[in-house]
Amino acid sequence: MSELRKDPISGRWMITATRKEVDTPIGLITVRKEERERDCPFCEGRELETPPEAFALRKEGSKPDTPGWAVRVIPSKFGVVGLNEELERKGVGDFFFFDTINGYGVHEIVIESPLHITHISKLTLEQIEKVLRVYQVRLNELKKNSLLKYGLIFRNQGYGEEISMLHVHSQIIALPLIPKSIKEELSSAKNYYEEKERCIFCDIIKQELYSHERIVSAGDKFIVLAPFASRFPFETQIFPRKHECDFTNVPAEDLRELAEKLKSTIMKTVKLLKDPPLNFVLHTAPFMVPEAGFWLTIKQDYHWHIEILPHAMLARGFEWGGDFYINPPSPEAAAKFLRDVEGE
Amino acid sequence: MSELRKDPISGRWMITATRKEVDTPIGLITVRKEERERDCPFCEGRELETPPEAFALRKEGSKPDTPGWAVRVIPSKFGVVGLNEELERKGVGDFFFFDTINGYGVHEIVIESPLHITHISKLTLEQIEKVLRVYQVRLNELKKNSLLKYGLIFRNQGYGEEISMLHVHSQIIALPLIPKSIKEELSSAKNYYEEKERCIFCDIIKQELYSHERIVSAGDKFIVLAPFASRFPFETQIFPRKHECDFTNVPAEDLRELAEKLKSTIMKTVKLLKDPPLNFVLHTAPFMVPEAGFWLTIKQDYHWHIEILPHAMLARGFEWGGDFYINPPSPEAAAKFLRDVEGE
Repeated sequence: MSELRKDPISGRWMITATRKEVDTPIGLITVRKEERERDCPFCEGRELETPPEAFALRKEGSKPDTPGWAVRVIPSKFGVVGLNEELERKGVGDFFFFDTINGYGVHEIVIESPLHITHISKLTLEQIEKVLRVYQVRLNELKKNSLLKYGLIFRNQGYGEEISMLHVHSQIIALPLIPKSIKEELSSAKNYYEEKERCIFCDIIKQELYSHERIVSAGDKFIVLAPFASRFPFETQIFPRKHECDFTNVPAEDLRELAEKLKSTIMKTVKLLKDPPLNFVLHTAPFMVPEAGFWLTIKQDYHWHIEILPHAMLARGFEWGGDFYINPPSPEAAAKFLRDVEGE
Repeated sequence: MSELRKDPISGRWMITATRKEVDTPIGLITVRKEERERDCPFCEGRELETPPEAFALRKEGSKPDTPGWAVRVIPSKFGVVGLNEELERKGVGDFFFFDTINGYGVHEIVIESPLHITHISKLTLEQIEKVLRVYQVRLNELKKNSLLKYGLIFRNQGYGEEISMLHVHSQIIALPLIPKSIKEELSSAKNYYEEKERCIFCDIIKQELYSHERIVSAGDKFIVLAPFASRFPFETQIFPRKHECDFTNVPAEDLRELAEKLKSTIMKTVKLLKDPPLNFVLHTAPFMVPEAGFWLTIKQDYHWHIEILPHAMLARGFEWGGDFYINPPSPEAAAKFLRDVEGE
């Protein structure tokens, strides 16, 4: 099985395999590209070749694990975590020096289309809207398990043709801990609010709308910007204008504009950088907001958003060494370039 | 010129170019491989084709910028920072919302051999020892500028054949700020010491030597281990057994064993992973240790070390999204594999 481990210095968690022999790296599917093209288990009509679905948006009357769905969620066949053991937090080493948690959690695949589409930019707006709705449904379902603290939703596009399924999909990993970068955001937002009685993200949005230099596009409900201190060239973020800590509270009628912003930003990035590997990651509130204690203020001080990270330039020594990034094209130039890409 | 910018949420700094037109990404040299092979300005005899040297280990009597050197340090021709402007810390935006520093600093290239060697594993132990000595000399020189707070020494091996010089070299970037990951280490080490009156790194070393599971090799003065919560498969760290916060205080007679550990670890990694892209980064104390305040205790609570990061698997969505890493082969397995590689 797998194990969650905490680095005692940085506080960063990682997942490793503790089986004796690691034959296939967990979480990665190593199937030859041609095979996957010929024989894609994510396509409609092949439902029985995947683990049974956890959820699907389906035509009324259609049965689970049969055709008739628009978006389908399945447990990852190569999941890095699972629910088949009891959650166990354990110190290991002398005096329990190192902190671990067994590989408790949920790892799901969101199949974003019944058709064999291999690039997110080929999905219709209607379909992306449905995918966003499914994210909300799954997060709401997963948070019923009070042992899980966070659900991270992300998408890898154009990475590892060798190792990953090509059929459009995103992933959800729900864990009994809050990932470090989210913890940092929560803590930073909390400190800012304590000092100023304002949300730091709302202030950033206001600042960016005022100067407009780094705005890629601004809609009625969502804005897209190139962050002031972007780590990667052409990195962008999508923020709701309205203060809200939790993505699952976004009203259904707003998801269409969000789908539009997501699709157009990705398409502009893809066009400008000639289809680079690209991630997007949803940053939303953790599941568990205890009545008292640290997270009490999260509703007022946190603000959900989406990060879109094209890896035009891969992180190298300086980046890994110092968590310090060199990103030559200024975010202002990046925003301008992106604004100027002809939309489709 | 370039600009240092701080992300208001994470506290992470980055460098960007603020020139109107970014033609060549700063810090990256885009020269065709064949040209660089034919015409390498890092080779002995071509000293006049580089900026004048900042320092060189040379034969007695030989003049600067002429042949006769063993290790040569030059300012980077495409430096991301420089000293040609006054240091200026500036808030930008309404109410100085965003924090910036102009691109003040030093960016140097350490040419590690007069010969056209293109892989660190081809350097002799004697030569690597000299390179380590030069790191100490340069850090001691750079810290005389009291505006600089940190000197980050790192090496990219096997990255970007397209964009980087092939002749063996490492880089030093000295900045008027402490990079985030070093700040985190300092702060974490300080908290641990305050609680326990012990250095957290010394405790890790003791723990690892006791269990031996993650030890790759242990010498009289230095040990090499696979960290308990490694971010990347086959990541390793080299620690001095003796508590010391500052690499420049390592006595000359210890550098030979350090060179041996560095070379053998890199060679084992290269052999095992078939010459992967690889970084190493020196983590040492910051330059500025004010008499009072936060860093007062650094001598007792920090412990310098070297991180060696092969990128057998590149970071993807989950990693960037959460600062949370999936690393299937356990560090215990990695250490065992590395121990078992036949040395040379």
